[in-house]
Amino acid sequence: MYEFFHDPIYFLTMIGTVVFALSGAMAAARKELDIFGFIIVGLAPAVGGGTVRDLLLNAEKVFWIEDLNFLYVVIVVAVIAFFQVHRLEGKRYTLLMWADAFGLALFTIMGTQIAMTYDIHPVMVVVMGMITGTFGGMVRDIICNEVPFLLQKEIYALAAIVGSCAYLFFLHLGLDEQGAMVISVAATFIVRGLAIVFGWSLPPYKAGGSPT
Amino acid sequence: MYEFFHDPIYFLTMIGTVVFALSGAMAAARKELDIFGFIIVGLAPAVGGGTVRDLLLNAEKVFWIEDLNFLYVVIVVAVIAFFQVHRLEGKRYTLLMWADAFGLALFTIMGTQIAMTYDIHPVMVVVMGMITGTFGGMVRDIICNEVPFLLQKEIYALAAIVGSCAYLFFLHLGLDEQGAMVISVAATFIVRGLAIVFGWSLPPYKAGGSPT
Amino acid sequence: MYEFFHDPIYFLTMIGTVVFALSGAMAAARKELDIFGFIIVGLAPAVGGGTVRDLLLNAEKVFWIEDLNFLYVVIVVAVIAFFQVHRLEGKRYTLLMWADAFGLALFTIMGTQIAMTYDIHPVMVVVMGMITGTFGGMVRDIICNEVPFLLQKEIYALAAIVGSCAYLFFLHLGLDEQGAMVISVAATFIVRGLAIVFGWSLPPYKAGGSPT
Repeated sequence: MYEFFHDPIYFLTMIGTVVFALSGAMAAARKELDIFGFIIVGLAPAVGGGTVRDLLLNAEKVFWIEDLNFLYVVIVVAVIAFFQVHRLEGKRYTLLMWADAFGLALFTIMGTQIAMTYDIHPVMVVVMGMITGTFGGMVRDIICNEVPFLLQKEIYALAAIVGSCAYLFFLHLGLDEQGAMVISVAATFIVRGLAIVFGWSLPPYKAGGSPT
Repeated sequence: MYEFFHDPIYFLTMIGTVVFALSGAMAAARKELDIFGFIIVGLAPAVGGGTVRDLLLNAEKVFWIEDLNFLYVVIVVAVIAFFQVHRLEGKRYTLLMWADAFGLALFTIMGTQIAMTYDIHPVMVVVMGMITGTFGGMVRDIICNEVPFLLQKEIYALAAIVGSCAYLFFLHLGLDEQGAMVISVAATFIVRGLAIVFGWSLPPYKAGGSPT
Repeated sequence: MYEFFHDPIYFLTMIGTVVFALSGAMAAARKELDIFGFIIVGLAPAVGGGTVRDLLLNAEKVFWIEDLNFLYVVIVVAVIAFFQVHRLEGKRYTLLMWADAFGLALFTIMGTQIAMTYDIHPVMVVVMGMITGTFGGMVRDIICNEVPFLLQKEIYALAAIVGSCAYLFFLHLGLDEQGAMVISVAATFIVRGLAIVFGWSLPPYKAGGSPT
């Protein structure tokens, strides 16, 4: 069992699931899918990152197979979104960006915690944290036949890497798990949030000239 | 070993493999691929759903690795389709729809049976049945760079869920495996078939208004 | 541990990783991604084929999780490519084709060797060799939202199949692993190289007429 199956952390995990399921539902709305499309495209970001992590680490069981709450939460979110998401037109995108940033922060640090229970190098722990936080959204975009958001301009993967490193760093300094988690979730959220507010991005490659 | 490795059921599995491999070959024909393209895009729907199921359930071995007949059947179908599929122009789409409906019905119920051999919740058994029946086609469409058919308007995933639930329901009523299988394969086929005949679909989400 | 973790062969594996990471970086340059995009799209071909093989064969651990050098090599290649790839404009494509042919040859034979350590049928060993050599590029193209190169006109999968069969054949004749490897890597490279030089391709399916 994962360490985060105590109440407050479990609650946060479900918040992250809600938020990412919502991001999938938004993508489904853009594609004008039916209610099953909303559920399936909602599942992709909500459980996709953790599924890739569990498969790569050869976990005993993929996490959402043994805990049905993830499925139920996604279904509820997808159904509500299907009927109510039109009310958000206009401010939808802004709300989503911030909710998504929060989901990214939560899932990255939880993925990092789970990866630490395996016998792998700390660098690979960070990679697995990043995969948990970001790959669900990539699967969502691949299913919807779009170039993944993860690969677009704005700082995204970097925020996950910063957060995951922060978690390991503060544990190393002697902080307990709860303390390190709060700080590193905040760090991920702040880096991503600053990127949203100030439009921070890494320079893209430009054909025909040095990108620097 | 799977329960369905007795003759009549094994035969049905191979029929389902033929039909789904054909659906991949049709997609390959649209993209004007070469004969290897036909085989690879034929493999995707024929073994893709079961592969995802086996990976998610952490099966000992992915089913088509240990039984080469799946590969051979796909190769034979792909080669025949490459040389003969042009004869079907016109009625091709109609034939394919019905063959695909039959493949969906068979694979969903067989996936349900295999999922029952694992220690998972009945709801997850239904999810695994649906994944077995529908994800192969999704992988096919992703490879061909199209929005998956599974996500389009017509009733598809719902037919798989109805069939998978019917199988569990009739087993629960005390029917033997064969009886429950016949009824639930028929149920899946009929729901999907009615959707084809009458153009049944679930309402899609419409931007700017309630979808109901 | 894989047999190829002796120095000369390990060196060749890393050359293959460099070459495939470079192919990913070229794709990232086309899409004008940032430096993380270069790394992620570089990882896809460099480790994608072997990852699919390890997942399908239910390996103890996915190979690049336990050996960080693969990740480091990809990062170094992606960073260098990000800043220097514009110098290759013009001859970039030619260079890439030949480097990619070399990577295809190396990875196919190494994948074949690894597959032989599992208890599977020789035909499936060849399939796993082909998957190791070719699926990484397919994942790269799917992520970049393009119809996979593997499915395009030119001979590609066939070269991998020829090379993998050659390896098994020469082992069967009594050659030692090193000798069989040199011959079969060369065979793969030559078949692919001839296809590049002479524009060899298998006939594609043409709508409305027999493809022969």
